[in-house]
Amino acid sequence: MKKLLMFLCLVSFCVNAQSEDEKQLRNIYDAALTQGKAYDWLNYLSNQIGGRLSGSVQAEQAVEYTKTQLDSMGLDRVWLQPVMVPKWVRGTPEFAYFESTPGVTTNVPICALGGSVATKPGGLKANIVEVQGIEDLVALGREKIEGKIVFFNRPFDQTLISTFEAYSGCVDQRYSGAAEAGKYGAAGMIVRSMSSRLDDLPHTGAMSYGETPIQNRIPAAAISTKGAELLSTTLKLNPEIKFYFKQNCEQLEDVKSFNVIGEITGSTYPNEIMVVGGHLDSWDLGDGSHDDGAGCVQSMDVLRLLKVSGYKPQRTIRVVLFMNEENGLRGGNEYAKVAKEKNENHVFALESDAGGFTPRGFSFDCSAANFEKIQGWKNLFEPYLIHMFVKGGSGADIGPLKNPDILLAGLRPDSQRYFDHHHAANDTFEHVNKRELELGAAAMASLVYLVDKYGVVPVKKIKR
Amino acid sequence: MKKLLMFLCLVSFCVNAQSEDEKQLRNIYDAALTQGKAYDWLNYLSNQIGGRLSGSVQAEQAVEYTKTQLDSMGLDRVWLQPVMVPKWVRGTPEFAYFESTPGVTTNVPICALGGSVATKPGGLKANIVEVQGIEDLVALGREKIEGKIVFFNRPFDQTLISTFEAYSGCVDQRYSGAAEAGKYGAAGMIVRSMSSRLDDLPHTGAMSYGETPIQNRIPAAAISTKGAELLSTTLKLNPEIKFYFKQNCEQLEDVKSFNVIGEITGSTYPNEIMVVGGHLDSWDLGDGSHDDGAGCVQSMDVLRLLKVSGYKPQRTIRVVLFMNEENGLRGGNEYAKVAKEKNENHVFALESDAGGFTPRGFSFDCSAANFEKIQGWKNLFEPYLIHMFVKGGSGADIGPLKNPDILLAGLRPDSQRYFDHHHAANDTFEHVNKRELELGAAAMASLVYLVDKYGVVPVKKIKR
Repeated sequence: MKKLLMFLCLVSFCVNAQSEDEKQLRNIYDAALTQGKAYDWLNYLSNQIGGRLSGSVQAEQAVEYTKTQLDSMGLDRVWLQPVMVPKWVRGTPEFAYFESTPGVTTNVPICALGGSVATKPGGLKANIVEVQGIEDLVALGREKIEGKIVFFNRPFDQTLISTFEAYSGCVDQRYSGAAEAGKYGAAGMIVRSMSSRLDDLPHTGAMSYGETPIQNRIPAAAISTKGAELLSTTLKLNPEIKFYFKQNCEQLEDVKSFNVIGEITGSTYPNEIMVVGGHLDSWDLGDGSHDDGAGCVQSMDVLRLLKVSGYKPQRTIRVVLFMNEENGLRGGNEYAKVAKEKNENHVFALESDAGGFTPRGFSFDCSAANFEKIQGWKNLFEPYLIHMFVKGGSGADIGPLKNPDILLAGLRPDSQRYFDHHHAANDTFEHVNKRELELGAAAMASLVYLVDKYGVVPVKKIKR
Repeated sequence: MKKLLMFLCLVSFCVNAQSEDEKQLRNIYDAALTQGKAYDWLNYLSNQIGGRLSGSVQAEQAVEYTKTQLDSMGLDRVWLQPVMVPKWVRGTPEFAYFESTPGVTTNVPICALGGSVATKPGGLKANIVEVQGIEDLVALGREKIEGKIVFFNRPFDQTLISTFEAYSGCVDQRYSGAAEAGKYGAAGMIVRSMSSRLDDLPHTGAMSYGETPIQNRIPAAAISTKGAELLSTTLKLNPEIKFYFKQNCEQLEDVKSFNVIGEITGSTYPNEIMVVGGHLDSWDLGDGSHDDGAGCVQSMDVLRLLKVSGYKPQRTIRVVLFMNEENGLRGGNEYAKVAKEKNENHVFALESDAGGFTPRGFSFDCSAANFEKIQGWKNLFEPYLIHMFVKGGSGADIGPLKNPDILLAGLRPDSQRYFDHHHAANDTFEHVNKRELELGAAAMASLVYLVDKYGVVPVKKIKR
């Protein structure tokens, strides 16, 4: 009888907890969808400030604006964390054409890759050799590459349902193409834009010269997908065409910038820190609405939604707007470094950096025990059409916080349209839907609430 | 031992069937994402033809174009099914303003509702009374309504996750508002546009005067959501403002049009018919890309994808492009009527009429036994992020086919952006994403394949 009573009490506790959680999630979603601030903040970031390349005036304006907004939210603490960031500048607009016969030219849309060197002031004109990836360079050898422009043209695999997987399968061309082609004496490199679409917009993005000495670095640019198709077709008809491009981008001295941070101090475990964040910098071609203005304003709204919905967190909840994800990850690294120096105990971090589209779920980088625990919350998210709880990556900026105990997570929105806009001139405010953005903020706040309420499972320290 | 062997054989059969199905779905998706034709067809329908209001030249062009395309697909049979459809025309652009003080006017965007009568040639000017729904009319009574324009202004409930639910909660105002307000002597009616967004676009849509005699019908128009907000605010400041609007739409005589039909004859059960379809007509303000060009081209591609992926259906698979869903449902009714007359055995029908967005799942209108059977296929769809298999409606055009045996289904795409475009001038091609559209076609073809392969569960006929 006593056992039965205990069992009934336990059942009743579980049912009550569940219905309390249901109510709290409903409150969070109602607040996000009727009094969310994410969309207004994004409007300002995108339309009043614009693209926020690290080291730019706009990046500093964004630091100031978001700090002011956090200050107005009645948080327990708001501060700026200094960090030195690279300052790469695009310079005057890039220009490119190919020449089928001398004097007969066709313009194609290009943009310099972030971190690339400039061409010589008069531009670079050379024969072109098309490859489907870095692995093709070996087969061609120096003889067929030297003095030419290498054109990396492996497209996205459209059969992959996640466009991020398609991106992962191509982006080595953009990131390492110039360094690798340079080893064979290439004079320059052009890469097909990392995009799911056929259109006229070039997509920029980070590249690295690796260990290449400065004097051996070759200029690198992205060409629009339609430009790439045209170039490839023309090359098949006439392999002797010349390609010309001109860009005068430049890597300047590092400058000082900031991570923007605000927190609600935990009522019970103030020393257990939960981070929610996105990155405040963006590329310069669009206004960085999806990448990653969306993630910043959603993260800011997570703290506001918890307050508005009347929840008092047990743990310290900290919003971090990281500086310089795109071309350096300096903000993410600095944040983790300072956290370590201060011996801060980070138990959870969640990043939104995959666009402001309808949220489909989360990916988790965590222990099996924590993943199992999280699976138990899936049914709470079902009414909100959140269905993907997967093991996988989290976010670039929170990656440096990784340790065996921490639970890292990333918001996973619908990915179909992300690479239509990613790093291109059309990553702009009008392509973000208000409700989709707000649903993302609500999903994030809901997860933060649950992790705060139920805690994470500590990993047993193994004695060595 | 014998039992064990039988069990092992059964397990092996199930596993093989499962992996054969996995392979077939993969083939369908690969074909849709790399050689789908839906997007090209939609481009033609939207950009070469445009809005396809029943009875319009464009609707007839769409009949001709889609028939030609079906003819070119190597189907077993393609034909046109005649149907008389209503012909309502908008006439010259509508015009509206409100007058705060005599001579001081503010223009607001409106459009006539489909089926509305015109105002008198000089337009209608009257005082305005705002209500939050039809139920408010009783409380106001004839005294406060007579001679005035009734302004229905209940907005979408933004807390609902499905925008279709929000639409359902408001659309009675648009559909029946004029008939109901007319009973109290109203001179006209204006309804807040059925939209999730705040913007300047009026959204048209069907309305009905019910039993109202012709001479008592009052003109009805939709006002943009921002117009509605402005009007409501102004009314609070000054309830005596006058509202003016002018429209010269007209209901003409019915004209002849067609359902466009094509089929692959079943190899084993040619008399069991499976329908997949959308509606070819649209409203006239945009080009009808989401509503329902998308559903038409997806349905056409279902038959092509099955062919391309090498599947030979056992049952007859029929694509039906229904005419006149928007303002009459004549095509759907005619199709069901003819099917009954011919004693055709329809076992399954699937409609896509909720936009060309990322598919999230299907809703089913069917017996419990069939729903249970379908649930067993859920895991096959998981790799494609199809997660919603719900009981509920299917589609307006296939509704008339309903009987206890048939399995009716509707594609359920992500709904967040649907009512940003629905029946408005921005329901246009550039708002349809190629991959999202193709994923919908692939999901539909996959369901058709599974239903064809495994059949539906017949309902036991109960003797009376």
